[in-house]
Amino acid sequence: MPHTPTPFETRLRAVADTVERRLETLLDDAPRTGEIARPERLMAAMRHAALAGGKRLRPFLAVEATRLLGGPEEAGLRAGLAIELIHCYSLVHDDLPAMDDDDLRRGKPTVHVAFDDATAILAGDALLTLAFEVATAEGPDAPAEIRAALAAAIARAAGLAGMVGGQMLDLAAEGRWGPRRLGEDEIRRLQAMKTGALLAVSAEAGAIAAGAGAEDRARLLAYGRALGAAFQIADDILDREATAEALGKAVGKDAGRGKGTLVDALGLDAARAECDRLVAEAEAALAPWGDRAAVLIEAARFTAARKA
Amino acid sequence: MPHTPTPFETRLRAVADTVERRLETLLDDAPRTGEIARPERLMAAMRHAALAGGKRLRPFLAVEATRLLGGPEEAGLRAGLAIELIHCYSLVHDDLPAMDDDDLRRGKPTVHVAFDDATAILAGDALLTLAFEVATAEGPDAPAEIRAALAAAIARAAGLAGMVGGQMLDLAAEGRWGPRRLGEDEIRRLQAMKTGALLAVSAEAGAIAAGAGAEDRARLLAYGRALGAAFQIADDILDREATAEALGKAVGKDAGRGKGTLVDALGLDAARAECDRLVAEAEAALAPWGDRAAVLIEAARFTAARKA
Repeated sequence: MPHTPTPFETRLRAVADTVERRLETLLDDAPRTGEIARPERLMAAMRHAALAGGKRLRPFLAVEATRLLGGPEEAGLRAGLAIELIHCYSLVHDDLPAMDDDDLRRGKPTVHVAFDDATAILAGDALLTLAFEVATAEGPDAPAEIRAALAAAIARAAGLAGMVGGQMLDLAAEGRWGPRRLGEDEIRRLQAMKTGALLAVSAEAGAIAAGAGAEDRARLLAYGRALGAAFQIADDILDREATAEALGKAVGKDAGRGKGTLVDALGLDAARAECDRLVAEAEAALAPWGDRAAVLIEAARFTAARKA
Repeated sequence: MPHTPTPFETRLRAVADTVERRLETLLDDAPRTGEIARPERLMAAMRHAALAGGKRLRPFLAVEATRLLGGPEEAGLRAGLAIELIHCYSLVHDDLPAMDDDDLRRGKPTVHVAFDDATAILAGDALLTLAFEVATAEGPDAPAEIRAALAAAIARAAGLAGMVGGQMLDLAAEGRWGPRRLGEDEIRRLQAMKTGALLAVSAEAGAIAAGAGAEDRARLLAYGRALGAAFQIADDILDREATAEALGKAVGKDAGRGKGTLVDALGLDAARAECDRLVAEAEAALAPWGDRAAVLIEAARFTAARKA
């Protein structure tokens, strides 16, 4: 019997298709008004990094949060695109030989393998910078207050006390600068920064794009934080269980490097229970919206239960 | 006879001191409200990159442009700090082994030498991201319209069609991906992107911070572009002439790598004449302000005549 897609699956796919098309347009070779030139090799590397497909979970969270709050869809999408560009840049830099040294991502050569290290560094820098061009771009649905708030929230989530800081803590946890064994609290902190902050700001950015007040914005942020934490535990459980074929990357690599995960700290069963608890927490944050939040609630469940 | 500092020199020094203090505060180890943690090693690397002294020419241009237009000094300073963070990150990434592979900058070990490549990549990413946090930070002198416009202008100048794109063209000009001999127009284009765009947006950002209209903003941008082009020619002349001791870096390195400069393309005398022409162009852009623009005019002359 063929699987009938749920409303969540239908929307996830629709947003992913839109994101792919918008990124293609953003990253084409034609210089825009006022631009001197778009170097060909740089653009090709940026497209390689950004047009690799994927679920586009972050833009989805932004778009759906905006929709929940009755904001203009284009505003939520633009917020989501900015965050997706940050996500893509972070993968390019994380894969570099000096960092995680990964040759493959989703079964394709990573940017520094397909091009070279210098091009990968610059493509990452340019994707990161472009995120802020997108977040602050003028448009009919983009009052200045929202554009400035979006850029500010994304910068905080992506920077020294967010994603980049988390990556730094992760390299330290590998023992790169001396032996390091993380306790449970430290693992949670690392994960809240490394992967949690950008997922959390995705939902929050959707609320900002909708012009939401502080209370609704805080609710979406709380939802995003719980979802982000569940995402990482699910990832660690997957990493422990999955086969190399299914994931297209070396399995058990994180464990092999001696990184701490909550699966290590709590054991597999307790990690699964914690993941369920976080999904419930994400749902609770959206309680005021009742059934209208069904798609975001399903997104949290999906995040925790995903197989890849 | 002791040298009596000119008003320009006095102001340049005062802005540099203020920038140094503000960067120290921005980059301290104490997590701000809402921040989970500031990883120690990351912060130390960011400070190493950003607190290396220097003339702080970019913030100076922003501050003086804001002052010329009667805007609030703090707004100009914040714009300048954001741009200085971008400048500092670009040096960290450019110095990496995969890029220009420089061990020394201003006689100090570069970030990847003092720390390691991974830390340098992440410190650069975090400085770049912090620039947008600073540009969009709320404050009494910071209406949303100005914060959004600042971030947008800085992102355009720093990104794929500006500084990062210029660095990409520069690596190509070295012959990294096959032989490449640049004509005069291509050299100008490369330099307008690689160093010109960030200097130009410094003056423009000062105008934005002052809430200037389109006309004044365009004038300051034209001034900054001419100054930026003069800056690069002066740099190439210096590189041809200076001694290793005076600069603290290997001299003739760019020429040795086969990069094209306007000194190569035009000869030394014609390059000097072009530099003078650009200074006159910068001055002409500020003609509507007469003597009130004296400090910025002196900045353009200084840029073209500097010895380091």
